[in-house]
Amino acid sequence: MWHAKYIAVDWGTTNRRAWLIDSSGSVESEFKDHLGLMSVPKGGFDSAAADIRKQLGDYPMLLAGMVGSDRGWRQAGYVPCPADAALLAASILWVEPMRTGIIPGVCQTEGHADVMRGEEVQVLGAQAIASLSPNAIICHPGTHCKWIHLQNGRISRFQTAMTGEIFDLLKTHSILAAQMSDDVMYNASFQQGLKDARDGAPLLNALFAVRARYLLQAAPPADASYASGLLIGNDVMAGLMQAASGSHVTLIGRPDLCHLYARAIAASGCTSSFVDGGAAFRAGIDSIIRQLGE
Amino acid sequence: MWHAKYIAVDWGTTNRRAWLIDSSGSVESEFKDHLGLMSVPKGGFDSAAADIRKQLGDYPMLLAGMVGSDRGWRQAGYVPCPADAALLAASILWVEPMRTGIIPGVCQTEGHADVMRGEEVQVLGAQAIASLSPNAIICHPGTHCKWIHLQNGRISRFQTAMTGEIFDLLKTHSILAAQMSDDVMYNASFQQGLKDARDGAPLLNALFAVRARYLLQAAPPADASYASGLLIGNDVMAGLMQAASGSHVTLIGRPDLCHLYARAIAASGCTSSFVDGGAAFRAGIDSIIRQLGE
Repeated sequence: MWHAKYIAVDWGTTNRRAWLIDSSGSVESEFKDHLGLMSVPKGGFDSAAADIRKQLGDYPMLLAGMVGSDRGWRQAGYVPCPADAALLAASILWVEPMRTGIIPGVCQTEGHADVMRGEEVQVLGAQAIASLSPNAIICHPGTHCKWIHLQNGRISRFQTAMTGEIFDLLKTHSILAAQMSDDVMYNASFQQGLKDARDGAPLLNALFAVRARYLLQAAPPADASYASGLLIGNDVMAGLMQAASGSHVTLIGRPDLCHLYARAIAASGCTSSFVDGGAAFRAGIDSIIRQLGE
Repeated sequence: MWHAKYIAVDWGTTNRRAWLIDSSGSVESEFKDHLGLMSVPKGGFDSAAADIRKQLGDYPMLLAGMVGSDRGWRQAGYVPCPADAALLAASILWVEPMRTGIIPGVCQTEGHADVMRGEEVQVLGAQAIASLSPNAIICHPGTHCKWIHLQNGRISRFQTAMTGEIFDLLKTHSILAAQMSDDVMYNASFQQGLKDARDGAPLLNALFAVRARYLLQAAPPADASYASGLLIGNDVMAGLMQAASGSHVTLIGRPDLCHLYARAIAASGCTSSFVDGGAAFRAGIDSIIRQLGE
């Protein structure tokens, strides 16, 4: 049945996005709304899922993202590394057999403990779209930035940095908030933050300098950009710590954020390219469906 | 007049503490209340200051701390490094000449920008109480942890880490909050955090592992202690980065917090001792008064 039309759903904490894919693999229709997990009332997932079919038609449906977490519709668990499309397809949680399925996340238990949920589908898709090397490095910036290493075409290890969340906490709740009202840009302040990170300035100290510069009247007017450069600089250094110099990184995610990461990656002597998150998600679902057979 | 009784006031953001010192240098009476800056209404500082004399008597009064900041009673400015009791005494902002004075903070403009306000008085006091070496290293843990280096008995340079504030943000507002409900103790989790810091685990990544361990059901029940160990471990490594191995650190501040820092300092191969914050403040005010002359 998966050779005919189907629905692909990326259902996260604050948003959901769904596409109806036709038998040629093209998008026939789509929608995006704010009915993320936080907006679904308790016990409301059955009808929230039924609503997707009301909008796109009564077709088979595969879902991924936080919808499969402990706060989502059903717990789809995690598959361990090394993970690929075949393992994810074999581990789908079927809400209705072969008709409505939730793709599991991926976990890492060797080395440091880590988890992802949703990004694994985009990684599979980027492999297909961008003809990635079987040993590619993929970076997915965001609230929790993921650095994912492929080995022989499978997700072999990954690490998550709380970069976006720490930035948001500082901007919203910290003593630095008043100095972080600017929109983050790749400007001189961002570059100074990157430089301080690369020069090894301790993160906890470099952040306080934002406050001190303000009090001493020497504050540049763009300290959200500075803090972002500092945090992204630290994130990229950790992400590339074990990578060969001159490595290539495939970025997936928000274009504005990927642009900032691209500059930080370039400052580390590596190269990067960009894959659109929605296209990667659809291609990843397609990869998994190809594993389902008849 | 300063040879007779006087009042010393440590007036911070959330609390204030005042002592009446008799002519022999002993505490005759004291009080502590929650009338910190945040609790004083606009235009209310004159009467809030008069209230101190109502409680302790009509004596000369020296104040220090955030009361001299842009959000305080009057802006007492900053003196630059190198700073000592003579410079601070000469730079007092007199609300009433030689009767009511606010001690300035200290700033650093060479190297990274940094500021302190209140800790400088405690540093002077610790020098007197603990017979510090003229080149001592002093650590003042807290929301914004200060590492202060003396050279020839003067405050020559210092750095501030946002350790306590980042910990509070994580515990209060972050995705890790639910896993950080334990009271921080020097336990196995704290020790693991220290070890991860010393092993060079990137801070932004090691913090996310708290979340991952919880989701993978391998979470120890004490992740506030883990996060504290990780943050304090990073703070102490940065604080001692330029210190000779085996250096001695004088800790000033809350005993519970100083205890945790003492363990982290010991793990770095250095030694530490502890000076009570209130005693250090009084001794620091005394050092400044000795510079005022008749």
